[in-house]
Amino acid sequence: VIVALLTDFGTRDHYVGTMKGVVLSVCPDATLVDITHDIPPQDILAAALELEAAYQYFPPGTVFLVVVDPGVGSSRRAIAADAGGYRFVGPDNGVLSLALRGSASSEPARVVELKERKFSRPTISKTFEGRDRFAPAAGWLARGTELAAFGPTVSDPIVLDVPVAKLTPEGIEGQVLRVDRFGNLITNIHRDMVGERGHEIVVAIAGETVRVVATYADVEPRALCALVGSTGYIEVAVNGGNAADVLKVGRGESVTVGADHGRPLPSL
Amino acid sequence: VIVALLTDFGTRDHYVGTMKGVVLSVCPDATLVDITHDIPPQDILAAALELEAAYQYFPPGTVFLVVVDPGVGSSRRAIAADAGGYRFVGPDNGVLSLALRGSASSEPARVVELKERKFSRPTISKTFEGRDRFAPAAGWLARGTELAAFGPTVSDPIVLDVPVAKLTPEGIEGQVLRVDRFGNLITNIHRDMVGERGHEIVVAIAGETVRVVATYADVEPRALCALVGSTGYIEVAVNGGNAADVLKVGRGESVTVGADHGRPLPSL
Amino acid sequence: VIVALLTDFGTRDHYVGTMKGVVLSVCPDATLVDITHDIPPQDILAAALELEAAYQYFPPGTVFLVVVDPGVGSSRRAIAADAGGYRFVGPDNGVLSLALRGSASSEPARVVELKERKFSRPTISKTFEGRDRFAPAAGWLARGTELAAFGPTVSDPIVLDVPVAKLTPEGIEGQVLRVDRFGNLITNIHRDMVGERGHEIVVAIAGETVRVVATYADVEPRALCALVGSTGYIEVAVNGGNAADVLKVGRGESVTVGADHGRPLPSL
Repeated sequence: VIVALLTDFGTRDHYVGTMKGVVLSVCPDATLVDITHDIPPQDILAAALELEAAYQYFPPGTVFLVVVDPGVGSSRRAIAADAGGYRFVGPDNGVLSLALRGSASSEPARVVELKERKFSRPTISKTFEGRDRFAPAAGWLARGTELAAFGPTVSDPIVLDVPVAKLTPEGIEGQVLRVDRFGNLITNIHRDMVGERGHEIVVAIAGETVRVVATYADVEPRALCALVGSTGYIEVAVNGGNAADVLKVGRGESVTVGADHGRPLPSL
Repeated sequence: VIVALLTDFGTRDHYVGTMKGVVLSVCPDATLVDITHDIPPQDILAAALELEAAYQYFPPGTVFLVVVDPGVGSSRRAIAADAGGYRFVGPDNGVLSLALRGSASSEPARVVELKERKFSRPTISKTFEGRDRFAPAAGWLARGTELAAFGPTVSDPIVLDVPVAKLTPEGIEGQVLRVDRFGNLITNIHRDMVGERGHEIVVAIAGETVRVVATYADVEPRALCALVGSTGYIEVAVNGGNAADVLKVGRGESVTVGADHGRPLPSL
Repeated sequence: VIVALLTDFGTRDHYVGTMKGVVLSVCPDATLVDITHDIPPQDILAAALELEAAYQYFPPGTVFLVVVDPGVGSSRRAIAADAGGYRFVGPDNGVLSLALRGSASSEPARVVELKERKFSRPTISKTFEGRDRFAPAAGWLARGTELAAFGPTVSDPIVLDVPVAKLTPEGIEGQVLRVDRFGNLITNIHRDMVGERGHEIVVAIAGETVRVVATYADVEPRALCALVGSTGYIEVAVNGGNAADVLKVGRGESVTVGADHGRPLPSL
């Protein structure tokens, strides 16, 4: 069984290694995979978005161990969930909510609180529940323990409030949600909102009007472009360069998708 | 069998991957886990502390492959050890000494020098013994080779000199030993030195007097606090922030634990 | 079977984790190893050199999944190869060419184009072929699919043009090809070009004349030295320090190996 980890612990301290030691102590034949540990410290939204983008490419049954937890040691709940054939463990602060929503197409997610102490380590640190509560729970899930054994059902898990793109007279107004390693600016405007009109539209960002193309190589080296990225959202990029650096913008920047001649898109 | 790696090789070069290839060439079914590779170059103390914090959370039998080795290629010894049910491989420069000390509660560590050439690669680079000497030794240990087969017993492995907290008329005087990714300042003052008086004491650092609490959330966002961290040592933190940045201090900074009204702690 | 990954995706986004999910979806018992993901964005030469340095330390049969792909989404070919007992998957932009050349001592590399759609994901993103084309191909290779099943033979894979050291009246003239995490400057001048005369030669770089020694510890702390590095090439280093910082040079810097008294090396 795969246990895939996503945290904001970074990789320079022992924290992630320690959690892996705990998972393997419970479930020695788990296959461990890192999604990322470089989420900005305590950035729940960033973690939720990375998880949402990645989880569905793992085999069914994968356990996602997600620890971005500004409330560590407080009374916020710790939860485990089962949704769309995947399992999730983490704090109840919304970090799992986008994945739980996404995989709930068939049947709603089941969520429980991690209450049963025999699936934790004997002592639970107030500063490192990743090691003492979440990692052992992930190990026990990977080992086959039923979700219901961990504790009572949670009917109202925290749901993250994610900025949503809106249809306006000017077109579709959205914003940059993620900036990746290459400086690509990934927006919250999904391909499905734009429809089939790809090449008839333009993207406005930071005072620039950017052409929509099929792939980076469709524009000159170092030129700006916009395209449908790998998760289905419109992104702004520079062919062979870094759009975030070129435009000097980041998460939260406004983005508008409009018709090619400045008129509102009629049917949007 | 788990082989857990801890080095200062970073992750941008091929070095760690190459070592893993060598381990798997010797022991194809080893489970590889990274503790960290981002130890500051040649910082033996930092590596020894990370190892000490992590190793006991791994299953017994785990082999720790630790390469922080300023003396690579010189005549410093290469060693393997068995202590508390764990196995260790690395240079004899003290990097293993805190873990060996820690796990020796039951019986003293056994240490041997890596002399037997058949457990090395045929040629040993003077600049990359991690690949040619330590990785194969870890692979052979994981595969079940007895410690004694690697070479003669070492009775005097190098022991690292770690700054120790002292009891003085002003309280307990210690220092910051580790600064983690979140900017938490982890001291060498253990909970056991302070006893049960948690909330009656204060921590003095960099001209600030800091309250001791149970968890980060017990103080206002962005406020300083001190607490017992996940390895049992007093640490100074900022709730939702970075104490190292706020206080502008790092490793070596003095820290004093005193009574809440400025008097020495009577029974310490 | 081992699948070893080398990309320029970094580790802060979900990209590498997503690719691993895809590999494991195809081949659940693959052992995943990271070589590095911190290749500078789109730096094909850097990736080719890291792969060349690492691959031969892995067990035969290892599948190398290499994605540094400035032409993603364009019509550049995607290839898989078999050479010297190893398997390789990546874009046909030269990134595999140094490894394919290196392992071809026994018999020439076999290269095919990834054309057969049943070994890709159903939809192939124009911005993330690593996920949709290369990762599944690596999974299928690891699972035992024959190379020929992936598509037609490629007789003219792109070969990278790597700067080669030259013999001149002044000695051997080469350049720095890699700068590693420690600031070591690794040149393209191989030990075999220099012959057995190690201690009779000097290395000139950035106005400095540097002694050739056997290992870092042969010079004073903080002193410059030159030596034969772990892959057989002359490198310039600082004992306990960072040569790139000290000399303020990087990739492409000229390096000359000459006789110790300024005369050309007679027999070179």
